[in-house]
Amino acid sequence: MTTTRIQRYADLIVHIGTNVQPGQILYVLALPEHAELVRALAKSGYDAGVRYVDVQYVDPHVRRTMIERADDEVLTFSPPWLVERYRAAADGGALVMIAGEDEPELLADLDQARVGKARTLDALDELRRGQSGRTLSWTIAAWPTSGWAQQMFGEPDVERLWEAIAATVALDDDDPVASWQAHTAKLRERARRLNELRLDTLRYDGPGTDLTVGLLEAHRWVGGGVETTYGAFHVPNMPTEEVFTTPDRRRAEGTVRSTRPLQLGGTVVRDLEFRLEDGRIVDVSAASGADAVRAQLETDENGARLGEVALVDGESRVGKTGLTFFNTLFDENATCHIAFGNAIVFGTELEDVAPDDLEAHGFNLSSIHTDFMVGGPDVTVTGITRDGSEVPLLVEDVWQL
Amino acid sequence: MTTTRIQRYADLIVHIGTNVQPGQILYVLALPEHAELVRALAKSGYDAGVRYVDVQYVDPHVRRTMIERADDEVLTFSPPWLVERYRAAADGGALVMIAGEDEPELLADLDQARVGKARTLDALDELRRGQSGRTLSWTIAAWPTSGWAQQMFGEPDVERLWEAIAATVALDDDDPVASWQAHTAKLRERARRLNELRLDTLRYDGPGTDLTVGLLEAHRWVGGGVETTYGAFHVPNMPTEEVFTTPDRRRAEGTVRSTRPLQLGGTVVRDLEFRLEDGRIVDVSAASGADAVRAQLETDENGARLGEVALVDGESRVGKTGLTFFNTLFDENATCHIAFGNAIVFGTELEDVAPDDLEAHGFNLSSIHTDFMVGGPDVTVTGITRDGSEVPLLVEDVWQL
Repeated sequence: MTTTRIQRYADLIVHIGTNVQPGQILYVLALPEHAELVRALAKSGYDAGVRYVDVQYVDPHVRRTMIERADDEVLTFSPPWLVERYRAAADGGALVMIAGEDEPELLADLDQARVGKARTLDALDELRRGQSGRTLSWTIAAWPTSGWAQQMFGEPDVERLWEAIAATVALDDDDPVASWQAHTAKLRERARRLNELRLDTLRYDGPGTDLTVGLLEAHRWVGGGVETTYGAFHVPNMPTEEVFTTPDRRRAEGTVRSTRPLQLGGTVVRDLEFRLEDGRIVDVSAASGADAVRAQLETDENGARLGEVALVDGESRVGKTGLTFFNTLFDENATCHIAFGNAIVFGTELEDVAPDDLEAHGFNLSSIHTDFMVGGPDVTVTGITRDGSEVPLLVEDVWQL
Repeated sequence: MTTTRIQRYADLIVHIGTNVQPGQILYVLALPEHAELVRALAKSGYDAGVRYVDVQYVDPHVRRTMIERADDEVLTFSPPWLVERYRAAADGGALVMIAGEDEPELLADLDQARVGKARTLDALDELRRGQSGRTLSWTIAAWPTSGWAQQMFGEPDVERLWEAIAATVALDDDDPVASWQAHTAKLRERARRLNELRLDTLRYDGPGTDLTVGLLEAHRWVGGGVETTYGAFHVPNMPTEEVFTTPDRRRAEGTVRSTRPLQLGGTVVRDLEFRLEDGRIVDVSAASGADAVRAQLETDENGARLGEVALVDGESRVGKTGLTFFNTLFDENATCHIAFGNAIVFGTELEDVAPDDLEAHGFNLSSIHTDFMVGGPDVTVTGITRDGSEVPLLVEDVWQL
């Protein structure tokens, strides 16, 4: 990891990921093990003309101690200053969140009900408000850590992980900014074609999977990025390979087998399977981590309903690495995925609907949003239009439109 | 540094330093290099019954980049969330601040005028309000870092520094809590005797030093610790060896030569000398770091007037280490010191006086407070009472009362 390469990466995150505008405040949310990238982001931010770079380090060990020892009511406590900070960020700020834990299984031996509950609810509500209302220009990007590399490769080969991350974000392309512009244009074109189809339902067929998911009548396919209300096109995930939209919370039936491990609050969930009835996940099994999933599903009354469906083909730069990253940012971009929990307003045409009225449209509201991976060469995804005709979308990981 | 010893140290800081009460929030202000102590403090805090442990890591490299690259007005900017955080802490919280930078000269090559100006003024005002009003239960304690050890010993001997710190805070005494109780009782007794003398002036005589400092008519000597308005006796500095009081901002005359190096905002000031007239520092010289001192003195109109005088004898556990720590927390507790800048209300009988009226009493108001060391075996400190009689206080580092 040379200094100049790290700085190029930070520049890419700031310019493509957040597309920060002069005079904005650039917020960075990181773990202590991300300090090297955080410091490069600060330089990129000031060089891009931001007013102030506002860094928050969350110490996962302090969080572990809180989950272990604090009173129940503290698990969901947001310090008022944190609500204020996220409120200010949501109202016109830019935010970089960094993924890549050095101790990804740090919370695995704790009471998973407490781990699942431990969320700064009021503060996160502010961030969600900024994301849904498109007043926050945000991105999630990754930093290679020793423990993460250990988890992926069985040895702490950080350089190998760094190479893999760099490949997925086009860092070593001749002109990474141009590569990103072409890439997001391709994803936007996919979303445009899907929107033309006016689909009613998606069907997934594969080993262990026989699932239909109804789409919201007002669904909108989105890919590549999002434009803020003030006109800044930004890329919320780096890498990103998906086009996604919003399911109807009332319509999902069948069984689905996850095709990749899922990293969830310090636990790795393997061989996850769900059965769904009337839009709700009613049965969970997994070789490991089932308790962590159940705790999430039970977070609130809509935790077990679906909030997102996303399509990714075999051309994905993430998929092409051939790696399982044990990290949703990457694994969800390797292949098709579905999320349970909260839906995303800009994956709909309901942006002007009052929050209290969203649910009547079939939009799911929850305090969680968790993606799990369902795609791969053995899984066929078919769209069913409103007039009942079937349109192949993905066959053997090849994009069909 | 064994885990159990670190945990004993954290327990001592929480119980003696902040004397935290069940249900309080314990705030921790640290650098990333203090993570090991921070994590132990979190455990100590929850075990002591605090409601929540609220940790803030400040990244000194991000701060350096801000000082280098941000607009002038940003140097003194406090993000609103930070003001809110310190306000909440000041109103009945407990706060541990950790000293001991891993890169103590990180800011030395920057424009010292900008370094001196870079302070989150509005946020620090809140902390000062909590300290002056005794609604905040706070302490500063140290953590040994590699770079600090390098500065002290010429090699990164962290274990040696850890032993030195442990010695100064009685960590390896049979019963450290009992040692601290006896120690703070001794300092309180010294303060009591000094208060009985009703002194008018202190005189310092030594090589390069011929200084008189008038005391506030309403001065009060304080030592050992402070009691909050809700009755929690806490120890703001660990270690602490001083008894201190408040000078009259209008009355200081002569010359003073600092007897120890001073760590100041990333710079080490050596061989510092001041000349004072009518209470104001009018001339500064130093072998290194004079610019950093001048920048501090010029921070505001009262930066060059005195805010504290403190007496420390040769029995000091810090002094007995024979070490220069290049860190004010320790070096000020090795020997007598004086501060320029803001005075401390609880070193007076003026606690009920409105802030706007304090200056008329001779109390100095400034946004800075910087201690420099003036004591040692060659420096005699004499008290002059209101009726003009002279009382030896320190002769050859021996306490005379």
